[in-house]
Amino acid sequence: MAGETIITVVGNLTSDPELRFTPSGAAVANFTVASTPRTLDRQSGEWKDGEPLFLRCSLWRQAAENAAESLTRGARVLVTGRLVQRSFETKEGEKRTVVELQVDEIGPSLRYATAAVNKVNRTGGGASPADGNAWGAAPVPAGVGAGEEPPF
Amino acid sequence: MAGETIITVVGNLTSDPELRFTPSGAAVANFTVASTPRTLDRQSGEWKDGEPLFLRCSLWRQAAENAAESLTRGARVLVTGRLVQRSFETKEGEKRTVVELQVDEIGPSLRYATAAVNKVNRTGGGASPADGNAWGAAPVPAGVGAGEEPPF
Amino acid sequence: MAGETIITVVGNLTSDPELRFTPSGAAVANFTVASTPRTLDRQSGEWKDGEPLFLRCSLWRQAAENAAESLTRGARVLVTGRLVQRSFETKEGEKRTVVELQVDEIGPSLRYATAAVNKVNRTGGGASPADGNAWGAAPVPAGVGAGEEPPF
Amino acid sequence: MAGETIITVVGNLTSDPELRFTPSGAAVANFTVASTPRTLDRQSGEWKDGEPLFLRCSLWRQAAENAAESLTRGARVLVTGRLVQRSFETKEGEKRTVVELQVDEIGPSLRYATAAVNKVNRTGGGASPADGNAWGAAPVPAGVGAGEEPPF
Repeated sequence: MAGETIITVVGNLTSDPELRFTPSGAAVANFTVASTPRTLDRQSGEWKDGEPLFLRCSLWRQAAENAAESLTRGARVLVTGRLVQRSFETKEGEKRTVVELQVDEIGPSLRYATAAVNKVNRTGGGASPADGNAWGAAPVPAGVGAGEEPPF
Repeated sequence: MAGETIITVVGNLTSDPELRFTPSGAAVANFTVASTPRTLDRQSGEWKDGEPLFLRCSLWRQAAENAAESLTRGARVLVTGRLVQRSFETKEGEKRTVVELQVDEIGPSLRYATAAVNKVNRTGGGASPADGNAWGAAPVPAGVGAGEEPPF
Repeated sequence: MAGETIITVVGNLTSDPELRFTPSGAAVANFTVASTPRTLDRQSGEWKDGEPLFLRCSLWRQAAENAAESLTRGARVLVTGRLVQRSFETKEGEKRTVVELQVDEIGPSLRYATAAVNKVNRTGGGASPADGNAWGAAPVPAGVGAGEEPPF
Repeated sequence: MAGETIITVVGNLTSDPELRFTPSGAAVANFTVASTPRTLDRQSGEWKDGEPLFLRCSLWRQAAENAAESLTRGARVLVTGRLVQRSFETKEGEKRTVVELQVDEIGPSLRYATAAVNKVNRTGGGASPADGNAWGAAPVPAGVGAGEEPPF
């Protein structure tokens, strides 16, 4: 892909993810993330909540199943993906347009929570990577040259 | 803040996070994320790994403790924060510059894993928010007007 | 600000920017950017246009005037800012929600064009950069007037 | 490409872009962008400059020529692209690593400047946009020549 509009959102799920399957068996999870910016009121010196942004998200395949299993309403998440637009007609025949996030990666935020992470043992499934490296395509590279680290 | 360089990285931890405490008791976690892009070879139709990007990260306070408790070497994570530069001198008196990610939010990726998320019950601690809303500043907003959802 | 959803879009203006002024004299420019992703068709080896994303943008103060003076329908631009949501009622009393980009910076893309750049000589207003400061740490823009939201 | 680390930087050129050509005739422009964040001092209520981030950038083909023609030292620009890492050896045989921005799009910021934009009339090359297409779905750029990496 090229020329896509990449976006990262941090916010809270407005409800549990809804998990469905396409006729061919691919999982898709849908959910909405509410992200609330805060503004510093320069007079009072206090932070105030701004207007929340609600973004409808869709997520596919194994990650969709993992998200549905791991996340519930209210969970704070990081989501990164591509912002896309979809047009549709209402039952009344009106045209509407929605903006949606096609999720590439999602994870629970560790800002106010801990997480016990469990690698998924995927068996079969054409979408699975060929090898046992459940952490993904990126193998853990050899450590970064230690000598280069600053004396923090 | 204004004019900051915001960045999101998805990759794997090259080692367990190192957790330290400042003299005043604030936690700070340091770790490196290795992110490996993939390129589609148009002749073979296959994806090939590109050169990995290694980004040194630092994360503060409660989130630092949560990350140290939740993440280990090899874990795939999403990290978002601000790209900053720091200059320092080596023991030999040479000047060096490093680019670093000041992490705002981190979470384990659910692409190849599930996670059991546990809200942290923070007691005391000047950094804690005042209320019991461990999910964070953003309270879960009322559901998004259901009528507006497309008939997916 | 904190917790905002930052986004960068590259695309083309669907029309000339509309420039208006608030009662207190602040300029605001509105325009829509159409961003078209391309997908590589792996069978044909050719790039195909995807569904365009149309993002309504608003831009304030001196930058609004500069954009209105510099950009016309069709211009390819880079835009970076904050994605926000606004709710309003139609004349028929229906509630609608739009997603909008509050632009922080905009510039014409140099991918298919050159540009003759002219620094604006702003007079009056403590916000003007010291003129010798070619490099400028971004001078502080004129304070955001309270209640400066445009009447639409 | 997939799994890349996308980044947008707003800052000022530390010098004029250097334009070079590969043996096969592809243009490449190199330059450094200095981006200075500002922090609000909550006690004084004033903005203070933070430590600048210097990012080395490289830009290819027609855009490189356009940038070299349009931009000079001190120009404020928006740059979006992919953050990559490159290792090399110094003359003394020491290994060094640099982080670099592979630019996808660049434009002069209109925050403090206006710009007279001129479409480039590219001749030869099937990659030229059809001229009437003011709006253009981004025309496919000229193919990336294999082995086009610059010799430095």
